[in-house]
Amino acid sequence: MPLFVVLDLVGIFVFAISGALVAVRKDLDVFGVLVLAGTTGLGGGFLRDVLIGATPPAALADWRYLVVPVVAGAVTFAFHPTVGRMEPAVNVFDAFGLALFCVAGAVKAVEYGLGPAPAALMGMVTGIGGGMARDLLAGRVPVVFRGELYATPALAGASVAVLLEGAGQPLWLSALLGGGLCLGWRLIAVVRNWQAPRPRGPASV
Amino acid sequence: MPLFVVLDLVGIFVFAISGALVAVRKDLDVFGVLVLAGTTGLGGGFLRDVLIGATPPAALADWRYLVVPVVAGAVTFAFHPTVGRMEPAVNVFDAFGLALFCVAGAVKAVEYGLGPAPAALMGMVTGIGGGMARDLLAGRVPVVFRGELYATPALAGASVAVLLEGAGQPLWLSALLGGGLCLGWRLIAVVRNWQAPRPRGPASV
Amino acid sequence: MPLFVVLDLVGIFVFAISGALVAVRKDLDVFGVLVLAGTTGLGGGFLRDVLIGATPPAALADWRYLVVPVVAGAVTFAFHPTVGRMEPAVNVFDAFGLALFCVAGAVKAVEYGLGPAPAALMGMVTGIGGGMARDLLAGRVPVVFRGELYATPALAGASVAVLLEGAGQPLWLSALLGGGLCLGWRLIAVVRNWQAPRPRGPASV
Repeated sequence: MPLFVVLDLVGIFVFAISGALVAVRKDLDVFGVLVLAGTTGLGGGFLRDVLIGATPPAALADWRYLVVPVVAGAVTFAFHPTVGRMEPAVNVFDAFGLALFCVAGAVKAVEYGLGPAPAALMGMVTGIGGGMARDLLAGRVPVVFRGELYATPALAGASVAVLLEGAGQPLWLSALLGGGLCLGWRLIAVVRNWQAPRPRGPASV
Repeated sequence: MPLFVVLDLVGIFVFAISGALVAVRKDLDVFGVLVLAGTTGLGGGFLRDVLIGATPPAALADWRYLVVPVVAGAVTFAFHPTVGRMEPAVNVFDAFGLALFCVAGAVKAVEYGLGPAPAALMGMVTGIGGGMARDLLAGRVPVVFRGELYATPALAGASVAVLLEGAGQPLWLSALLGGGLCLGWRLIAVVRNWQAPRPRGPASV
Repeated sequence: MPLFVVLDLVGIFVFAISGALVAVRKDLDVFGVLVLAGTTGLGGGFLRDVLIGATPPAALADWRYLVVPVVAGAVTFAFHPTVGRMEPAVNVFDAFGLALFCVAGAVKAVEYGLGPAPAALMGMVTGIGGGMARDLLAGRVPVVFRGELYATPALAGASVAVLLEGAGQPLWLSALLGGGLCLGWRLIAVVRNWQAPRPRGPASV
C-alpha cells in the first residue's frame, strides 16, 4: 500500500473516531454512531469531489475507504469510555488528519483545473467539511464557528501548498511545507488554547 | 405507465406525506410544508444521483416526479388532522417506499459502475436520505439515529439485491428478494417496536 | 465588466451581508462570519450547479466571486453595529438579489437542458438556497419556512422568465419581466408584512 493511502486512511480513522464520540455523547443508537463516523471521516472529501465534479467520490470506488470508518465507529461504540479518555491523543492525530486532508484536497482541486484561490478553499473544505457535517447531523452549530482555531490553519496550509506547487516546486516539497504549517499551527493552537476573534460590542438586535 | 414508475411515485407520495406532517407539527407555513414534502420524497434520490454523478437527477427530467410531492404536501396542509390520524397506515406504505427505494438506488449505483459495497450504501442513502434531510430542515436530530430500526433493513435489502444480481440472478428476482427482506424486517420492527442498540455505560464527559 | 456580472456580484454582496449579520448575532467567531457570508452569497448557485451537473460551479472558476463575500463578511464583522442599523436598506437590496438570482438560475437550468417546471424550481433554489444553508449552519429552522413571503415571489419570477423565453420572447425581456415580478412582489410583501398561510387547527400529536 503506498504511503499516501496509509496516511489517508489514518486521517479518516481519527476523524471517524471524533464523529463517533460526538454520537455516543448525544446518546444516538449504533447506526447513528456509524453514520456520524462515516460522515466525519469521508464528508469533507465527498463535498470537495461533488463540487469539483469528480464523481463518484474516490471513497465510493475503494472498499477500504468504507471499512475504515465502520471499524472506527464500531470500536468507539463498544469501548467509548476508553476511547473518550484517549481524546487528547485523538486531538493530536486529528491535527495530522487536518494537515493531510487540506493539502491533498487542494492538490486534487488543482488537478481538476481550479485556480489557486478556489483550490485552497477546496483544501480547507476537505479538512473541515466532515466535522461540519458531523455537527449538523448531531444538531449543534459547527464547532469550527465557535472560536476553535481549526479552519485557519487548514486554509493557510492549503494555500502554501498550492502556491509553492504553482511556483514550480516539486509536489512532495509543496505538500510537506503546506502540511507542516497546518500541523504546527493547529498543534500550538490546541496546546495554548488559542481562540479565533469574536465580534466586539453588542450585536444590534 | 410502467409498473416501476407507478411504484416509484407511490413511494415518493408516502415519503412526502411524512415530511409534510413534520412541517405541520412544527407550525411551518405552506411553503415550508411543500418544501419538506418535496425534500423527503425526492431528497434521497437527489443525494444518490449527485454522489454517483448522474446529474441532473431523474426527478428533474420528469415533471411527474415534481407534481407528486406537491400534491402530497398540499393535501396534508389542507387536511392535516385527517392525514395525521392515518399515520399508522402511512407507516406501512412508508415501509414499502423504503424497500423500493433501497433496491432501486442500489441497482442504479451498480449501473453507474460502483462496486457492491458502495452500491449497497447508495441504496441505503436513497432510502433514508430524504428523511434525514427532512429532519435537518425541521431542526431536529434525524430520527434514524434515535433507536428507530429503519436504516438497517434498507442496507440489508440493498445488499441482498446487489449480491444476487452480481451472482447472475435476474434483476426482478434480486429486487424482489432484497425488497422483500427490507419490507418484512421493517414491518416487524414497527409492529414489535424493535429498537437499535444504544451505547452502554455513561458517556465520558 | 458586463452589466450581468456587476449585478450578480451585487446580489452576492447583499446576500453575504445577511449571512454575516446572522453569524454576528449568534456570536460566532470571525471564521464563522466569513463562512456564513460565503455560504449565503454563493450557496444557492452551488446547489443549483451541483444538481444540474454544471461542476465546478461558476464561483469556483472566477476569483471575484470569492472575494466579494469575504469583503462583505469582513466589513460586517468589523462594523456590525453600523451594518445592523442599515438592515432595512439591506432588505431592499436583498429583494434585488433574489429577483436576479431566481431569473439567472432558471435561465441557466434551461441552458443545461431542463424542462420548464424543473428549471423554474432551480431558479427558486438559486434564490433561496443560500439563505437556507445559512440558517442550517446557524442552527435555526430556515426563515423561509416561517411565514416570511420569500420563496413564492422567487418561484413566480423564475416561472415567468422560463415561460416567456420558451414562448420565443427575447432573453432580456423574459428576464426583465420575471425579475420585475419577483422584485415587486417581494418588496410589497416586506412593506406590508405579508405572511404565507400556516396550517389551521391543532396539529394532531
